[in-house]
Order: sequence, then structure tokens, then C-alpha cells
Amino acid sequence: MEDMSVNPAATTAATSLPAPRADLVGAEPYGAPQLPVTHALNVNENPFGPSAALADDIAAAVREAALGLNRYPDREAIALREDLASYLAHEAGIDRPPVESVWAANGSNEIMHQLLLAYGGPGRTALGFTPHYSMYPEYARDTYTDWVTASRGPAPDFALTAQDVLAAIEQHRPDVVVLTSPNNPTGTALELEVVEAAARALAPTRGLLVVDEAYSEFRRDGVASALTVQGDHPGLVVTRTMSKAFALAGARLGYLVAHPAIVDAVRVVRLPYHLSAVTQAVARAALAHREELLGQVALLRSERDALATHLGERGHEVAASDANFILFRTFADRSAVFEALLARDVLVRAVGPEGWLRVSIGTPEDNAAFRTALEEADPR
Amino acid sequence: MEDMSVNPAATTAATSLPAPRADLVGAEPYGAPQLPVTHALNVNENPFGPSAALADDIAAAVREAALGLNRYPDREAIALREDLASYLAHEAGIDRPPVESVWAANGSNEIMHQLLLAYGGPGRTALGFTPHYSMYPEYARDTYTDWVTASRGPAPDFALTAQDVLAAIEQHRPDVVVLTSPNNPTGTALELEVVEAAARALAPTRGLLVVDEAYSEFRRDGVASALTVQGDHPGLVVTRTMSKAFALAGARLGYLVAHPAIVDAVRVVRLPYHLSAVTQAVARAALAHREELLGQVALLRSERDALATHLGERGHEVAASDANFILFRTFADRSAVFEALLARDVLVRAVGPEGWLRVSIGTPEDNAAFRTALEEADPR
Repeated sequence: MEDMSVNPAATTAATSLPAPRADLVGAEPYGAPQLPVTHALNVNENPFGPSAALADDIAAAVREAALGLNRYPDREAIALREDLASYLAHEAGIDRPPVESVWAANGSNEIMHQLLLAYGGPGRTALGFTPHYSMYPEYARDTYTDWVTASRGPAPDFALTAQDVLAAIEQHRPDVVVLTSPNNPTGTALELEVVEAAARALAPTRGLLVVDEAYSEFRRDGVASALTVQGDHPGLVVTRTMSKAFALAGARLGYLVAHPAIVDAVRVVRLPYHLSAVTQAVARAALAHREELLGQVALLRSERDALATHLGERGHEVAASDANFILFRTFADRSAVFEALLARDVLVRAVGPEGWLRVSIGTPEDNAAFRTALEEADPR
Repeated sequence: MEDMSVNPAATTAATSLPAPRADLVGAEPYGAPQLPVTHALNVNENPFGPSAALADDIAAAVREAALGLNRYPDREAIALREDLASYLAHEAGIDRPPVESVWAANGSNEIMHQLLLAYGGPGRTALGFTPHYSMYPEYARDTYTDWVTASRGPAPDFALTAQDVLAAIEQHRPDVVVLTSPNNPTGTALELEVVEAAARALAPTRGLLVVDEAYSEFRRDGVASALTVQGDHPGLVVTRTMSKAFALAGARLGYLVAHPAIVDAVRVVRLPYHLSAVTQAVARAALAHREELLGQVALLRSERDALATHLGERGHEVAASDANFILFRTFADRSAVFEALLARDVLVRAVGPEGWLRVSIGTPEDNAAFRTALEEADPR
């Protein structure tokens, strides 16, 4: 493109390039840097790759699906949705949801996009609470939904109370509210009373309540999923992903649980055949290995709690985490700490309030390397 | 849901269900019926499943990718886009496009959605020519783009001339024009002069010209791809898919070739990590088998031409086809013929103008079964 400014013919071509919508001009594609490091603790990936046994089962499932790839996939992904329903009953301790209440798509990105496509749009407003996952405003932008925010409580708790949520709903009158439990990047889970208060407040205006539970499987004992109160609140959608607990970020499988009428609205706006036959086969193979994968989740929870204790003992402010990452306050300037960690082959993420860094929970080796690097990168 | 009308508590719950956007209420999800029949000639699938060798290669590629599925995929899908660039140079007889000019997504559905997301939107208009693929209005609806249409010429040619296109551009002043070569459901390819006239007409207003070439590999000798004139028209996007020629409808891989600035605009609106590591691996495995797959395309073209001749000899009006399907006019009422064919285990599609049916080209056995069934279903 640089040459175009000095080549007259190319300049002509450049000026006749099609014009994207005005609000996209100058925008950059979303995404964390994908840098080659030994300890990638920046995007909350699960550090444990699939076992050889799971990889074999995935390959076998895909081999079988491959023979029929000339045909379009099951548009409704019924078998996968059945498997997800069974898993959820097991994981959250709820009655098995009917298949009509479960929906799957290419990552929870696509799930959220579909929800805002069906329930947002021009003239409609969605409400979130900062600091939050950086993609929410993009889902809103790409569905022409107004994205408005209120703040979570102060550090280090970043709490969100029913009072906070009700006040923000009262102020913004949103069509959609996005809650998060646990929240990215703070790791904070929600009390069920907060979820239920929001659901009751939205019911009279027929608003949609989304609880993003992408990291739910990492929650601490005694913390419950919003799935457990869903039966009382038909406007409550719970979204999940296989990227984290199932260590399947590369396979792109997000899903939701909702009243069948909500699933039906999403079905209207989904692109037909959005979920490939291969994706369906891979996800089902992984769900069949749930015991192995949830065992790794237990280890990651234990590593997280140990790292939180360690950071606290070092004197850092630490946000209590129910997820597979920890947000903590650095002693020195966070950019300097980030770079000093990177120089030691440890990649974390500079998100959340100024002065805080987020570190994903890795393998015990990753976490030990992080601790060692932090000693030098951010001396007490 | 039926019970809810008689249960007061449930009625309350139903009335507090969230309200989707008004234009979706009562809409049905798009999709052809997925019926179990012996001869499925209704959705223009390639009838040849992957060979055992290709299925093995797909499984091996996925086995390798599986071991890293805990990590997010390459967000830019560089290796796949390189392979697609090489394939296009071979197939269309063009210089190999730079990787920055090639983009891939989950089916050409997602490609079209991304293009209209970046170049359409509220207050913008996209123009198509009827009869056309039934998803175009849905892409427009879900990006809040106005969809306007002009008509192709009369049966049986369904021609689209440069004059037709220029008149419609003059009338509608569209931001995006969607041309199709060959067109679904008519099978009609475009002269390059039509494409170039449209590109020139759109350049002054910085409009986007999309040429949907989903079925391009099936074009007859002497028909050229719009890729061959793309260098002269920076606003021209050519979209393709692996669903048809590559017999990969189940794997969901669509792609486009465009000026790098257009790819950059699409990258802003794409959902991050939209294309799974598994999808990337499967598509690359299939591209490595291009000779085998394009050999089957040659057979399907030959079967198509033979069937077109046969239908003509029976006295049907037949639209000349450059695709893997044929649109023809029935003697009897088309619904009756559709049902009579279905009763004989042959599923076709009732699309296009009243009185016409579309039949996909199947295996030689499928096509023979269709001929036999048609003798009885629609006697001369």
C-alpha cells in the first residue's frame, strides 16, 4: 500500500477502492498478539493438550465424518446438542435440559453475535459492566446495537451487586444485559441473587439476560452456575464454551442454554449449516472424554488457588478468581513488568484497570516459571 | 409451548419471554428440507464422497491438529490462504494472488455476511438480480442492508447483459452489487464484459462488486472466471467455496479473492478465531487432492451436458447451465412433478420461476434414476 502514494496509476486505483462503513475506517482487527513464547499465559488457554487417546478418538470420528463431507452437515446439530445437554446436567447438577433449549455455534463469539443479532439491533441497547471481555463492544458494533456500560465495584473485589445491576438497568433501560460469571478479566463470579434480580428486572420489558459462563467449570466450591436458577427465568440465557475446560480453543465450539423460544429466534438468524460436520464430530469426541478433561480442570483450579495465595503473600493486590486466570496489581509500571516477563519467555496480558496484569493458569511448570520470572520482573 | 396457553403461570412466563427484533417475528429458519432419500438432487451437493485416501489424509491432518487444540487457531489462517492462492492460479489460469488478497471463512455464507457487514449496513443498499440464491436477502437482513433487485432476462436464457446491470445501478445507486457466475438457480454464467461494465460503473461511487463463483469450476469450456479481470478492477471481489467442486459441503469452507484493502476491512468485522484449526487442516488436506477432485468435476460437467441434451430432447425448456445443476420447465404443475419424483425416491428443488424445477447433477446412477422417474412423474 505504501507504494500507492507515489504511483499515480495506483493512486487512482486506491481512490476507487470500495468504501467500508464509516465506523470501521481505521479500526484494527481484534486479537491478542500471537507471539512464540515458551509460557503462553495470555489468552486463558488450557495448557493441557488433548491426550493421545482423545486425539485418536477425534481422528477416528473425523475419519468417519469425512466420508460424508460432500453432503451438508446436520443443520440442527441434534446429536451434539443432546450430548451437551447431558454434559450440562452432570456438570451443573441440573435436570437434563431438552435439546430444544441447547444451541451450539463456532465459539461463544458466534453465540454472542447470534444473540445480539436476534435481540439487539438498531435502536436497541445492550448493557455490560466494566472491566469486561473486550469483544463485547465488537459484537454490539457488528449488530448495530448500542453498547453501554456501568462499572463494577472497586479493586480488588471488582464486585457486582444486585443494587449495581438494578441501578444500571433503571438508568439505561437496556434490551439486553450481559452478566459474566466468572468475569473476564477479573475472575469474579456472581451471586445467584444478582442474576435473579437482573432477570426479574428485565422481565416486564421483555429484555434478554445473558450470563456468560465461559469459565464456569473453574468456579470454586460453593459457587453455583446460573443454570441452577434458569427454570424460574425464561429470559435468562447461559452461554458456555468448550475452549477452556475442554481444552478445545482450536476447535471453536460455543453453546448456550435458553428457553426454546430464544433458541428458535437464534435459529432464524444463524447462517444455515453454520456448524461443520467435522466440528460436530470433534466436539462430540471431546465430550465423551469429559472425565479426563474435568480432571485437568481440578488441577488447574488447585494451581490457581496456590498462585493466588503466592501473589498475595508477595504483597500484590489480587482479585479473587473463579476462572483459569488471575488479575493482580503489579508493584512497578505494568507495561514494564509485562515486557520484563516477556523477556523471560513468559507472555501475560495487560488488560483490566491500569496497573493490573492478567496471567492465565498454565501447567505447574508454566506457573513455576511465571513465579520465578515475576521475582525479577516485578521485585517487591 | 402448547400447554402454556392453558397454564396461567406458564402464560405469565411466556409473555415475559424476551422480544426479538420485530422483523424476525414469525420468520422461519432458512433451509431446504433434509429428507432421507436415495437420490438427493436438491441442494447441489457433489455426489462423490471423499475417497478413502482423502479421508485418511483428512484424519491424519486432524490427528496432528488435535494435539494442539487447547490453543487458539491461527487467526489469519495463513497456510490455508496460501494453498487457496496456489489452487486459484492453477484453476483460473491467473497469476498466483498474494496471500493478502485471499480470505477464508466458514462457508461462503460467512464470506457474504462478512462482506455485507463491512460494506453494507443501515442506509446502504445491495443489488441483486432475480431469480437468485435465496440466502442473499438474509445476509442483507442480518447486516441491516437494504436488498433491492432487478430481473434477469426471460426464460429460458435468464440472461444478464451489461445494459441490464448498468440500468439497475443507475436506478438504485447501490453500495454493493452481487453478480453470480454461474447463477443459482438458473446455471447461467456471465460474460466478462458484464462484470467489467459493472466494476467500472461502481468505481466512481466506491461501490463494491461481488461476483459469486460458488459453482465456477463447473463452467463450460471457453467461459472465464472473473478472476481473470480482477487486476483491472480493485473493487471487484470474487467469492468461491469448497462445498461444490471440492465435495466439501460438510466442512464449511468459503473464500474470496480481493484487493488487500478489502480483505483488511473484512478482517475488522470477522469474529476472532472464526476458522477452527480443524477446518483449516481439513481444507488443506482436500486442496492437496485437487487433481482427483477436479477429475470428478469433469465427469459431472459431462453428465450435466448429457442431461441437458436429454431434457431438451424430451421437449422441456432448459436453462443453459455452467453449474452442477439444471433448471428446466416441467410439462405438468411443478409441485405435482416434485411430489411424483419424491414418491420415486428422487428429491429435487422447486426454486426459480413458477413452472420450473432445479435438479442437481448426481452420480451417473442418480441421473439415470432421475431420468426414469421423470418419465413417469412428468410425462410428455
